Amino acid sequence: MGGMTAGAGRVWAHVGQTFAETGYDVVIVGAGRMGAACALFLRQLAPGLRLLIVERGGLPNEEGATILAPGVWTAFDVPPGREAEAAWVRRILEESFGDVQFAARPLLNLYPEEAEGSVPTTDALARCPEAVGLLSPRALPFARVDEDAATYRPGAVALACGQGAVRARADLLLNTHVHLTPGGLCLDRLTVTNTHEIVTHETHELRAGRVIVAMGADGPHAAEHDLGVHTGHGRAYRQAPRLNTPSTDAAPILRAGGLTLRPQHGGFTLIPPVHHRDPHGYVPTGGRLTGVPVGVRRETLEDLIRLMDALPPLGTEALEVGHSLADVPGAWLALPEGRADAPPVHHSLTEGAHLLLGGPLADTLGLAVAYDLAAELAGVRERPWGKVPFRTAKKLPLEGEVGRG
Amino acid sequence: MGGMTAGAGRVWAHVGQTFAETGYDVVIVGAGRMGAACALFLRQLAPGLRLLIVERGGLPNEEGATILAPGVWTAFDVPPGREAEAAWVRRILEESFGDVQFAARPLLNLYPEEAEGSVPTTDALARCPEAVGLLSPRALPFARVDEDAATYRPGAVALACGQGAVRARADLLLNTHVHLTPGGLCLDRLTVTNTHEIVTHETHELRAGRVIVAMGADGPHAAEHDLGVHTGHGRAYRQAPRLNTPSTDAAPILRAGGLTLRPQHGGFTLIPPVHHRDPHGYVPTGGRLTGVPVGVRRETLEDLIRLMDALPPLGTEALEVGHSLADVPGAWLALPEGRADAPPVHHSLTEGAHLLLGGPLADTLGLAVAYDLAAELAGVRERPWGKVPFRTAKKLPLEGEVGRG
Repeated sequence: MGGMTAGAGRVWAHVGQTFAETGYDVVIVGAGRMGAACALFLRQLAPGLRLLIVERGGLPNEEGATILAPGVWTAFDVPPGREAEAAWVRRILEESFGDVQFAARPLLNLYPEEAEGSVPTTDALARCPEAVGLLSPRALPFARVDEDAATYRPGAVALACGQGAVRARADLLLNTHVHLTPGGLCLDRLTVTNTHEIVTHETHELRAGRVIVAMGADGPHAAEHDLGVHTGHGRAYRQAPRLNTPSTDAAPILRAGGLTLRPQHGGFTLIPPVHHRDPHGYVPTGGRLTGVPVGVRRETLEDLIRLMDALPPLGTEALEVGHSLADVPGAWLALPEGRADAPPVHHSLTEGAHLLLGGPLADTLGLAVAYDLAAELAGVRERPWGKVPFRTAKKLPLEGEVGRG
Repeated sequence: MGGMTAGAGRVWAHVGQTFAETGYDVVIVGAGRMGAACALFLRQLAPGLRLLIVERGGLPNEEGATILAPGVWTAFDVPPGREAEAAWVRRILEESFGDVQFAARPLLNLYPEEAEGSVPTTDALARCPEAVGLLSPRALPFARVDEDAATYRPGAVALACGQGAVRARADLLLNTHVHLTPGGLCLDRLTVTNTHEIVTHETHELRAGRVIVAMGADGPHAAEHDLGVHTGHGRAYRQAPRLNTPSTDAAPILRAGGLTLRPQHGGFTLIPPVHHRDPHGYVPTGGRLTGVPVGVRRETLEDLIRLMDALPPLGTEALEVGHSLADVPGAWLALPEGRADAPPVHHSLTEGAHLLLGGPLADTLGLAVAYDLAAELAGVRERPWGKVPFRTAKKLPLEGEVGRG
């Protein structure tokens, strides 16, 4: 029997807890930011639907892209036409999930040449004295400032959403690997042996009215492998090296040449640009700096080297490049449509299966796209950022469709 | 002693032939299309310079990108401002290298929507009846036609240039691996053991007034590893699958969605688009077609699948996707500046060392860039396609600089 809390959903954390359910109206696979948020919104919008969240790891998951996501909200990242969604995301990040370390702080986007809306970097620095010393105003004489930018912890958002969904009576099955099947799922409940091997303890068939594949960068591959559906999505391995140059709560976010310096833990976390997807079969590997093996992949190293004159701390020992790949935090990032600039997306895979993808712009738009899918499944036409234009939203015949276990 | 031909340069093909030279004015590393052409032009422009070509394999080399290059000359591939060079390349391909299977034939670039200068595909097909049946005019209703396009064999050009250079008294050292050193080279003369292992038979130091690194996609890495020079060049693994749909000498070249169908050997060779560089450490690997392992890499497979409606033969057994990577010819292609659309380039690496790179546009511009480097080394200001604008061309102090061995 799963663990119970009065009035809350059940949680199966380990294989010692018997899981005997046979079907749900909706199963969400993956409790990262996208899946957990979709679960919470679905509980709010369609409380009558029986909902299960299945997660391969724990809550929070420590391996996916959510935990490494920069957590930078900036209007500079919002594609045209998506402003209302992004503003809604910013508002609920600030208000709705408890302490997700939301901190409003300006973002300075720095340029070697004049750009639309730019001001002299020296003027921008007068407003952000903490950034003096981090950059060379001679190499980057122009800046655009986003006064509405903010940082937060996407991992904390995922945790709050997951816990909120369970409090709102979603069930949660942890440490379980999923295969998609027509009309449902096959569950492999995982356990760890005395020799630290992860093995399948038992398998379990489950019917589901709808399955939402929210497995991050693994989602498109799972859809293809299990359902035989081809998608055009890609992925890229993104690392987030540390820069141990002191920062305080007053430090701005800096961006130059696509690289974002995000104040965090008293220093900076570097978020390198994603230029394009990595090829199928690519195994991330560390690069070399003047002949010495390091943990940062070569392409990222090249981006950092290119910026060393403009951002002098990158050329110092403050930059942690590590000795091997394991030394530098990194994760696979989904690239919707294989593009590095594509917003988060959801779409139907087969009848009854949906793919939900975050990707590089999940920090500004992910929650809105998760909401959109939840509302679509709930048959709700309204969106909190405005009505859905040009889209037929109809109530899907879900409730009661699947027999109660 | 190397093999001799009256009036020609010496050739060392195997380790049984003693190589006792100690220095050359110029050493060209790599006898692919770029290196061999540069060698020939340098013999013509500066016959006083003592010249050695060093090649890791034989002549022709069977492993590099030259042998797999499409051999398609088309005005559609010529970047703005490079038209005179491209026209010169086309002329010498047709006239100057003997039988390189030069064949003028139109190229049809096909589009789903109207493009500048396009005509209805049905009109273009009236001109190229052989292409009927290869494509769906409904999916690709518009076409641009290059009446001046031509196909040829880049491998035959490299062979003719290499042989021509030797006839003009260039020396040639085959089966030799090179390390770049300050002021010269270290040569590893290779041999094959009874157990088919390739081993270094002897090493040899060589002084060189100038070294030209023409090692194709391996050049930037060698420059970095041996000379400590960082370059921004990249590479991509490009495969050329076969399409066994019959073609004759009258067949046009077809192009759609970046994929080129080049009539060859009574069928077609497919030249997929290169979208971007492959990451450092990528090991090419075959993809899967509806679950079955094939020899074509996934990214190329996706490009082909996307075009199956527009080019119906791609959806038939005429397409040879193989069972493993070894079944589909492929080679690493240099990407100058890491870009898939960058023209060939040469530039100085260190004092005395130059990099010569072909890449995706080598078919239309490679020989001109090889000529340009040869002329620069020879101190010749004129170019056969016109004077060099805005560039100081001065005679370099090469001749007699290096002692005769």
